[in-house]
Amino acid sequence: MKRALVTGAYGFVGRHVARAAAARGHHVTAMGHGSWGRDEWKGWGISDWHAVDVTVDTLTTYAGKPDVVFHCAGSGSVAFSMAYPYHDYQRTVATTLSVLEYLRTTHAGARLVIPSSAGVYGVAEEMPIRVADRLNPVSPYGIHKKMAEDLCRSYGRHFGIQVALIRLFSVYGAGMRKQLLWDACRKISEGDLVFGGTGEETRDWLHVDDAAALMLLAADHASDLCPVANGGTGEPRTIREVVDLVARQLGCAQRPSFSRSVRAGDPMHYHADISEPLSWGWRAQRRWLEEVAGYVRWFRDDAP
Amino acid sequence: MKRALVTGAYGFVGRHVARAAAARGHHVTAMGHGSWGRDEWKGWGISDWHAVDVTVDTLTTYAGKPDVVFHCAGSGSVAFSMAYPYHDYQRTVATTLSVLEYLRTTHAGARLVIPSSAGVYGVAEEMPIRVADRLNPVSPYGIHKKMAEDLCRSYGRHFGIQVALIRLFSVYGAGMRKQLLWDACRKISEGDLVFGGTGEETRDWLHVDDAAALMLLAADHASDLCPVANGGTGEPRTIREVVDLVARQLGCAQRPSFSRSVRAGDPMHYHADISEPLSWGWRAQRRWLEEVAGYVRWFRDDAP
Repeated sequence: MKRALVTGAYGFVGRHVARAAAARGHHVTAMGHGSWGRDEWKGWGISDWHAVDVTVDTLTTYAGKPDVVFHCAGSGSVAFSMAYPYHDYQRTVATTLSVLEYLRTTHAGARLVIPSSAGVYGVAEEMPIRVADRLNPVSPYGIHKKMAEDLCRSYGRHFGIQVALIRLFSVYGAGMRKQLLWDACRKISEGDLVFGGTGEETRDWLHVDDAAALMLLAADHASDLCPVANGGTGEPRTIREVVDLVARQLGCAQRPSFSRSVRAGDPMHYHADISEPLSWGWRAQRRWLEEVAGYVRWFRDDAP
Repeated sequence: MKRALVTGAYGFVGRHVARAAAARGHHVTAMGHGSWGRDEWKGWGISDWHAVDVTVDTLTTYAGKPDVVFHCAGSGSVAFSMAYPYHDYQRTVATTLSVLEYLRTTHAGARLVIPSSAGVYGVAEEMPIRVADRLNPVSPYGIHKKMAEDLCRSYGRHFGIQVALIRLFSVYGAGMRKQLLWDACRKISEGDLVFGGTGEETRDWLHVDDAAALMLLAADHASDLCPVANGGTGEPRTIREVVDLVARQLGCAQRPSFSRSVRAGDPMHYHADISEPLSWGWRAQRRWLEEVAGYVRWFRDDAP
C-alpha cells in the first residue's frame, strides 16, 4: 500500500483524485480548505483530513511521509484571478513552492503530480496544442499556473524533486458547480437562452474521473525532468454543441442563441494534443454524450 | 520634488539608487533589511529609513505615497539560491508581488522600476544578448528573477501598473563585497593566484553609479507594457583581463592562472545589447580601467 497525500482535496479535482487513489489501495491523507463532515471525506476514501493552509509547516506536521503527493490545491478561476490576483497567486504559486520545499527539505524521495491548466497556453496559434508549444498565458490565473510550473522545473533540475505536470483542459463531471455546463444548466433552466461569444469556440472536455486516472498514472512518470502532459481527450466540441445538448436534455424546445460578444483574453479554441498520455497507456473511459446527459440529470435532480 | 521609495536600500544597488534619487532632488523613503546607523543612511540621501520586511502591510504603512518606486530588495546570489531556494524565492518573487499588489490596491499611479538580472537569460545562444532573446535561466536565482518579471508583466497588462525592468549585468563599484572583483582582491592579496574556469569567460561590467542613473531614467519609460532594458555597457571583458588588472594593481608580480574547472550552469559569455538605454539617451559615464583601479585602492586602503 502506498501513502498518498492530496492537497486541495475538498476541491472538485482533488476529491476525485483522492477517491481514485483510495480505490487503487492507497492510504490517503488529505489537507486543504473546506468545511467537510467526517462522513463526507470518509466517503471520498480519505483516511485523514486536515482543514489547514498548505504551508511548509502544515505539510511537515500533517503530510504523513507520502510516497506520492497530488497537489490539487490552487486557484481554479480566471475571474477570481482578475479580481484578487494576490490571493490567486498565493493559492497557486505559494502553495506549490511550499510543497516543493517540503519535499526538498524533508522528503525528497516522494513523487509529485500537479494539475496545471491549459490556461498556460493562452492564445495558442496552432491546434492541437502540444506540450512543447509556446506558453502565452493571457490572465493572472494562467500566468500563476505557468509560474508554478517554472518552480517545479527548477526544483526538479536543481534539487532532484520528481514531478509530473498535467495541463488540464475543460474538466467536467456531476458535482461541478462552475464553468460552462453549470452556467448553461442554470441559464437555460431559468429561461435565459442567450449566451456570450459566437458559439463556435471549442473546448476539449475531460471527465473528472478520466482526469483523476491520468493523474494517478502520471505519478509513475514523475521525474526530475518534470514531464508535462495535456489532460484532454483530443476531441474538441463547440460551445454551441454543448449548450444545444444541455437545452435538449432540459426539455427546452427553443435553441440557445449567441450574442457574439467576445470576452477579451478568452481563447477561441482549445484542442489538446494528448500524445503523452496515450504513450503512457491512458485512454479516456467516459463518453462525452452520456456524461453531459448525466450532468444535466444531476443538475435537475440532485444539485441543491 | 518627487517622492521616491527605495526598497532594499541597504543593499549595494539600493544604496546607490537612493543616493542618485536624492541627488536628483527626490525625497527618498527607504525600507528593507539591514542594521544601519542614522548618520549612515542620512549620508546616502535617505530621509526616512524603515528596517522592515517588504510586505503589502509594511508598504501601506511606510511607503509614503511615492511617485516612483525602486524595488531593489531581492536576492543577489546564485549560490544562496542553490542553498536556500525557498528564501531566495521569498526575497525576489514574494517581495515583488507585495510591491505590485500595494500599487494596485492603494497607489496605482506610481511608477515602478525593478532591477532584474542577466541571470534570466541563462545560457544565451547569441551575443550580444538582446532583451527579446529567449529566457533560459539555469539557476533558482535566475528562475526567480524571471518569475518576478512575469508578475510585473501580468500587473502591467491586467491592472495597468507602470513598470520598467532593468536586467543588470555585472554591477561593480567600491564597497561591493562579493563577486569577482571582491574575490579576486582577496585571493590575490592572500597569495592565491589560481582561479576557476578558463579565464576566457566574458562579463559585461557596469559601474553601480551608471546602473543607478539608468534606473532613474527608466522611471520615465515605465508603462503598462513593462519595457525591459539591459544594464551593461556592451563592452565585455574576459575574466583573465579582470584578474590580471587586479593583480597588477595589487603589485603582484606573478600572473594569475586558471584551473579550467568550469562550474555547471555558469554561462561562458555575457555581452549586453544596450539599444534600449542608448535610445533613452543613457550613456555609461564611468570608465572601466579607472574604476577597477579605484576598486582595488578601496579594497587595499578602506575595506575593513
